[in-house]
Amino acid sequence: MADSELPHRPKPEAPEGAADAAPAEGAAGPSKSALKKLAKEKAKAEKAAARAAQEKAQAAAQEAADTAKGLYGPLPESEDVIPSVKFSGLTEDTHETEITVVARVDNARVQSAKLAFLMLRQQGQKVQAVIAAAEPISRQMVKWTGGVNVNSIVQVTGIVKKPEIPISSATLSDIEIHIRKIYMISEAAQMLPMQVKDAERPPPETTEEGQVDADGTPLVTLKTRLDNRVLDLQTETSQAITWISSGVTELFAEYMIKHGSRWIFTPKLVGTATEGGSGVFEIKYFKRKAFLAQSPQLYKQMCIAGDMESVFEIAPVFRAEDSNTHRHLTEFSGLDFEMTFRHHYHEVLDFAENLLVFILTQLQERYKDQIETIRKSYPKAGDFKLPKDGKALRLKYMEGLAMLKEAGVDVSEQERYENDFTTAMEKQLGRIIREKYDTDFYVLDKFPMAVRPFYTKPCPDDPTFSNSYDFFMRGEEIMSGAQRINDAKELEASMIAKGVDPNQEGFEDYLNAFRQGCSPHAGGGLGLNRIVMFFLGLPNVRLATLFPRDPQRLRP
Amino acid sequence: MADSELPHRPKPEAPEGAADAAPAEGAAGPSKSALKKLAKEKAKAEKAAARAAQEKAQAAAQEAADTAKGLYGPLPESEDVIPSVKFSGLTEDTHETEITVVARVDNARVQSAKLAFLMLRQQGQKVQAVIAAAEPISRQMVKWTGGVNVNSIVQVTGIVKKPEIPISSATLSDIEIHIRKIYMISEAAQMLPMQVKDAERPPPETTEEGQVDADGTPLVTLKTRLDNRVLDLQTETSQAITWISSGVTELFAEYMIKHGSRWIFTPKLVGTATEGGSGVFEIKYFKRKAFLAQSPQLYKQMCIAGDMESVFEIAPVFRAEDSNTHRHLTEFSGLDFEMTFRHHYHEVLDFAENLLVFILTQLQERYKDQIETIRKSYPKAGDFKLPKDGKALRLKYMEGLAMLKEAGVDVSEQERYENDFTTAMEKQLGRIIREKYDTDFYVLDKFPMAVRPFYTKPCPDDPTFSNSYDFFMRGEEIMSGAQRINDAKELEASMIAKGVDPNQEGFEDYLNAFRQGCSPHAGGGLGLNRIVMFFLGLPNVRLATLFPRDPQRLRP
Repeated sequence: MADSELPHRPKPEAPEGAADAAPAEGAAGPSKSALKKLAKEKAKAEKAAARAAQEKAQAAAQEAADTAKGLYGPLPESEDVIPSVKFSGLTEDTHETEITVVARVDNARVQSAKLAFLMLRQQGQKVQAVIAAAEPISRQMVKWTGGVNVNSIVQVTGIVKKPEIPISSATLSDIEIHIRKIYMISEAAQMLPMQVKDAERPPPETTEEGQVDADGTPLVTLKTRLDNRVLDLQTETSQAITWISSGVTELFAEYMIKHGSRWIFTPKLVGTATEGGSGVFEIKYFKRKAFLAQSPQLYKQMCIAGDMESVFEIAPVFRAEDSNTHRHLTEFSGLDFEMTFRHHYHEVLDFAENLLVFILTQLQERYKDQIETIRKSYPKAGDFKLPKDGKALRLKYMEGLAMLKEAGVDVSEQERYENDFTTAMEKQLGRIIREKYDTDFYVLDKFPMAVRPFYTKPCPDDPTFSNSYDFFMRGEEIMSGAQRINDAKELEASMIAKGVDPNQEGFEDYLNAFRQGCSPHAGGGLGLNRIVMFFLGLPNVRLATLFPRDPQRLRP
Repeated sequence: MADSELPHRPKPEAPEGAADAAPAEGAAGPSKSALKKLAKEKAKAEKAAARAAQEKAQAAAQEAADTAKGLYGPLPESEDVIPSVKFSGLTEDTHETEITVVARVDNARVQSAKLAFLMLRQQGQKVQAVIAAAEPISRQMVKWTGGVNVNSIVQVTGIVKKPEIPISSATLSDIEIHIRKIYMISEAAQMLPMQVKDAERPPPETTEEGQVDADGTPLVTLKTRLDNRVLDLQTETSQAITWISSGVTELFAEYMIKHGSRWIFTPKLVGTATEGGSGVFEIKYFKRKAFLAQSPQLYKQMCIAGDMESVFEIAPVFRAEDSNTHRHLTEFSGLDFEMTFRHHYHEVLDFAENLLVFILTQLQERYKDQIETIRKSYPKAGDFKLPKDGKALRLKYMEGLAMLKEAGVDVSEQERYENDFTTAMEKQLGRIIREKYDTDFYVLDKFPMAVRPFYTKPCPDDPTFSNSYDFFMRGEEIMSGAQRINDAKELEASMIAKGVDPNQEGFEDYLNAFRQGCSPHAGGGLGLNRIVMFFLGLPNVRLATLFPRDPQRLRP
């Protein structure tokens, strides 16, 4: 018959010791002792069957007598559409009305044979439900309700009541649902690798498993949380963080579109490791090699050379760096933009500053509730401070250096343009700036050319420096950008000066883009995960990433 | 000194035969004939130097006498901000006013010593400019203007005039710019691998290079166009196509956000090739292997299990399929969504249909001009027909099969559920449906379970079929979707029935997501490039992709 390419469902094996099983070929007849054993087993089986029948009859009798029959258990098939409400729709107005909700069971507790409590959870928000035996609600229904496995998804119909004492452990403490019907939508296994409520708190410093807090609650390590990320995402905090991440992306796209920018998708599969071999993942591409793009840099510039004027991209960025820190990932979400300008690259820098101020301001406006929720779990960092006048603070790199020097930091390497600021210096500068200017967001402009990549435009009046900038949040870099060299000859010279071979395979298309004429342009690349992390003051970038990837982690 | 990590600029080599070059060690003294030769060369050099000096003096005299000095040539440095206008801003109102534009030179033609014409191009749109020698404009300035390399970017200041005869070769035929100043912003090389205007027409059927059209214009093959994609992107048609692609993405995101969906980013680096080994790219991941995700399927479902209710993703999708067709790519842009439903998967199907109707309707509204531009180059396919009542046409798979059978197509394999429709069948069904229902967009629902992947929910009333659907545009598939199995045990059984081992490494996290409880959900995955291709009736998906990737192509 059909399905020649699809394997068939394997035939069920005959049950062990089944009566009609044919004896194995050539097997000898049964011995006396075996016969005795068989008779014993037969008697045992008969006894068990009788017991089972009795239990079944009892259950049937109970079920027949169950006044709550049909009010609980598996979700019955029904053509009727039963509107359900969100917890956010449960207000004082709904008191004394009958509502239906679909939610997870966060906790189930049997108080007595006649009373049970459920804590229901919807996207991390919690509401208490109660069931009491009183016709038609039977003791069986109370027992069933109190015995629902934690994390199961149920459909509950009940009356909204105001509890006598506010329920402090619930998100909506002035609401209690008095259950009339409860059906199972999706049953969770009895054993969960961790409890969702234990993941509500920040992960501990310890990486040792099985530790408990001072009050006896289990300490769920970051590893356990990430190993069980689906459960971890169900917490109120994770729900809020994923909304913030969604929000940053939306605000970025919204601003770019509003300003006439074109949404682009540049290839992640590239033929050559043009941006340096060590940080690039190598792919088996049919019979040859390919690489994963480390950034859309060369391609977004080629779009500009292709007369696209202003472009933006939202896409994964891959880094084969063996960095195991709190802020490095091997795959993250890049928010990139590139645009032409008329007179000066500060036209683009102004744009980028306004973009970030827009994103950060709107986050505080549109995601107030989520930010508050997250602040409960991560209070340490405090609210993110934005410049009061709605304009970004812009300092020159050398001004930042002077501030560090004044604070007694050894910046001798930086003064000789040998290295960029270290992470520690950046953080310290962040603290100095916060104190002096009362802002957690600022920009450094005019980095030394020596610490920037070959495609960066040197400063026309002093080639020691460059028309490049970094953006910082709470003293950590979230964006790097610059004016790019748009003249092919200048670009080739810059490549040679930086030890990059312009004749290397893969650069031909890039250089041709400028040989064929290209407008002056500038741009930048933002790291979404870092923006979320630093905006919220999270201790680890993995908490701002759905399914993080690092040198050690490729799952879930 | 500085830059210990950065390579230094190599020292310039001494020019060949330079006077102060030290003789090679141990070299013999010059011979008589060599001396004679040297004397001859010296005389020649002196003569050339005298000639050069004379020419320089002439040029200097000419320059001194040039009444247009400073009105043309390299862009002078200036602190002044000179506002420039877009071609779209050039209307009848601007007649007789002085404007400044930045544009490419599409074509330069010297008519006489006193007259030259430029065709200027901005994002593919063309406007003619003219320069005539009349004080202060000199013959030198006319010569310089007429000699500008094609594709260079210039800044032109001039008076907008209405030409006596409309300029049919220009986009704005009622506008002519009378040049007063012209400066070079970015000079293009003299030789271009192809002319932008030759890429304005559709690529020919031929793959042979160097062919010409009946009227003598060069036929630029698709290969040449893609090899020189930056030039190809500069055509009016490519500009319009990239706007449509941007528009589809924007409309998708807009609709999802408006309906409360969360923007997600799932990992492209995965630890195991869970979706079948052959179509997956393998990566060297530090000391082990990793793979590129073929779709966000398992991860977006895990987000639903993580209580995210409704999610969407816009991200690259990688397919290691050695398919060399007009509609296959190894990397394309996926628009994915997944959401829970309450009673029936048709809630999600309704949503998806409305999403597509929204995107396609809004494209026709917001991108009217771009669609018209593209239609000029690709008139064959005709306008995309949308259902008149604003509701998608939904047919059952078996209804489609019956329509094909009625048209005399051999569907015996399909009747036995051995195979899905072939591409040829789909196209024919598209024609039948267009004729019968006057629409290019329709949906097939209830595909046979045998032709769908393991995670598809079978039809509750007939497990031969499944709660799955495909979306079609002009008879070609643009989306596949379904209700997914949300019960772990049912999922395991379905895997086994499809020959997939549930115990395979990598499925554990996926199965656990359902073991821990998961709401009923459905979703789908759209191919952006195909939507653009079929909406516009383009002959090849590569024309709808910025930098296409296929088994043969990894550049530019």
